[in-house]
Amino acid sequence: MRHTYHDVEFCATRVALSLLAGKWKPILFFHLFAGPRRFSELWRDIPRVSKKVLLEQLRQLEAAGLVERTVHNGFPPEVTYQLSAKGAELGPILRRLDEWAVKHIEGVVQIS
Amino acid sequence: MRHTYHDVEFCATRVALSLLAGKWKPILFFHLFAGPRRFSELWRDIPRVSKKVLLEQLRQLEAAGLVERTVHNGFPPEVTYQLSAKGAELGPILRRLDEWAVKHIEGVVQIS
Repeated sequence: MRHTYHDVEFCATRVALSLLAGKWKPILFFHLFAGPRRFSELWRDIPRVSKKVLLEQLRQLEAAGLVERTVHNGFPPEVTYQLSAKGAELGPILRRLDEWAVKHIEGVVQIS
Repeated sequence: MRHTYHDVEFCATRVALSLLAGKWKPILFFHLFAGPRRFSELWRDIPRVSKKVLLEQLRQLEAAGLVERTVHNGFPPEVTYQLSAKGAELGPILRRLDEWAVKHIEGVVQIS
């Protein structure tokens, strides 16, 4: 069945890529694949991102259902972020993409 | 080994995603996965893309080594585009991403 114009807008791959692309999201995913992280840990481990930008990126990922935010009661209360089940499913795909890029794109680095 | 700042710039996944993201590249890949295509075929099959934008997208993919351009002698001479070996390796990865998106993102369509 031939698809009409609106499919370009809603092409699954395009929408998925738009959720992942950008300067900070790939490296955010990388850190969150390691498990739940406090905001302060993410801010420390991702060089040169401002707190404002980091918060905005996390909110976008949360809105897309890829990240979950948990508030832990205590004094002061603590907030951790972790990948949702949906977000975690992207792990193997992004790893394959990372391997492809390391194999084929000069000068890139595999963040270990 | 902890990576320093410049790695964010050269993070393999980030660079790969930047090559693939955008309005037209995912659907271009979709069509080129089916085999070599003439410019006129691509322009016909991708609704509402202008010739100028299509040409620019193909040039970017060619510059990234993901697409090869072949000029066939004849009258008039014909130009076809096809994925390079490097570009074709992205097929399974983009297919997995497409499946993930169809499963998890409401309203997207799998272009068949």
